[in-house]
Amino acid sequence: MPKDQSRHIVQRLPKRADYERTTINTIIDEALICHVGFCDAGQPVVIPTIHARIGNQILLHGLKGGRLLKHVNAGHDVCITVTLLDGLVLARSAFHHSMNYRSAVIFGKGREVVDATDKMAAMQRFVEHLTPGRWEHVRQPNAKEFKVTSVVAIDMEDASAKVRTGPVSDEDEDYALPIWAGVVPLELMASPPVADAKLDPDTRTPEHVTGYQPATRKK
Amino acid sequence: MPKDQSRHIVQRLPKRADYERTTINTIIDEALICHVGFCDAGQPVVIPTIHARIGNQILLHGLKGGRLLKHVNAGHDVCITVTLLDGLVLARSAFHHSMNYRSAVIFGKGREVVDATDKMAAMQRFVEHLTPGRWEHVRQPNAKEFKVTSVVAIDMEDASAKVRTGPVSDEDEDYALPIWAGVVPLELMASPPVADAKLDPDTRTPEHVTGYQPATRKK
Repeated sequence: MPKDQSRHIVQRLPKRADYERTTINTIIDEALICHVGFCDAGQPVVIPTIHARIGNQILLHGLKGGRLLKHVNAGHDVCITVTLLDGLVLARSAFHHSMNYRSAVIFGKGREVVDATDKMAAMQRFVEHLTPGRWEHVRQPNAKEFKVTSVVAIDMEDASAKVRTGPVSDEDEDYALPIWAGVVPLELMASPPVADAKLDPDTRTPEHVTGYQPATRKK
Repeated sequence: MPKDQSRHIVQRLPKRADYERTTINTIIDEALICHVGFCDAGQPVVIPTIHARIGNQILLHGLKGGRLLKHVNAGHDVCITVTLLDGLVLARSAFHHSMNYRSAVIFGKGREVVDATDKMAAMQRFVEHLTPGRWEHVRQPNAKEFKVTSVVAIDMEDASAKVRTGPVSDEDEDYALPIWAGVVPLELMASPPVADAKLDPDTRTPEHVTGYQPATRKK
């Protein structure tokens, strides 16, 4: 059978690949940001930005007129990649050093979200994606803010996840070497929140902020 | 004066831009991974991978024959982006929600590193980039491992950093609202190392592993 060269089929270490949408969505939802790639007259450009997901769509936003959003609105292909780092894999051999990670690569085309209800729903999702439960506490977008914000939705046409977990994998003959090997777990962690200096000191810290952690923030 | 449209000139929020190589290099060196973007017959592709830096060059590596490395070796343009997340910025208004971050976007072309001395020096840099001090402890690449690994070097032709730090910035009239606002600091943190199950329990945990933290790992 010929090797599948479709854009989302993982070529290197295919045993780490996963095409299940549940796996892919979980990675997208845990990641606070994504990296968006596009080709601008043949020049690759990769921009980090906040994202959100509704169903099979990735949402991006920014001020109107930005290069990324203009490019997406023009209907060009984009590639959106999210990556979560879970650990350093320190092998006995230099060659088998690796990382534990979960990543998702999504291909699709975008379009501007113009319907006012959909656009406001998207704005809510950006806030809720980062800090679930916060939207109802904040001052919501006014007409001017709504107007200067551009929201784009990208249908996830093709997507794949790639995951490495577990311990070191060394060559058989290297296990006897007196070299420390193991995994250093990594996680994006939040420290206690720092209240704004201009905040009325009587303002209660809401539950969605107290004890916030990126990896466990999903309700 | 006409707006500079060069590929590395930051168009959105230019007050956050920095073109100093010292700033850019510090961000590259702290990041454990980068996201590499390339255009494959007009299709943007963004791949997360481990990197290292020597002087004005970004080094990437992988098994020979991978799509990314083949593309770089062919002399095409790539865009390498690294991003460090430093905090959630929780404003009183939905509109002014943001992140504190440091990112660098690098444009350049690559070439394969074929000189054996340079290639071994690059392999050392990948290990030392992740865990300074580890190279001298590990079993170094043998002839077979050396042969199946491909290393590419990308000259940093154009680069820019973008940084947001500091507190919330709200609209003047919103400061009086009884809404909690502030910053939740974020950092990629390591937990204590987990020794490999097959490790001789008498093996001492070396200093480069004990107390390892990504943000402070540089010597």
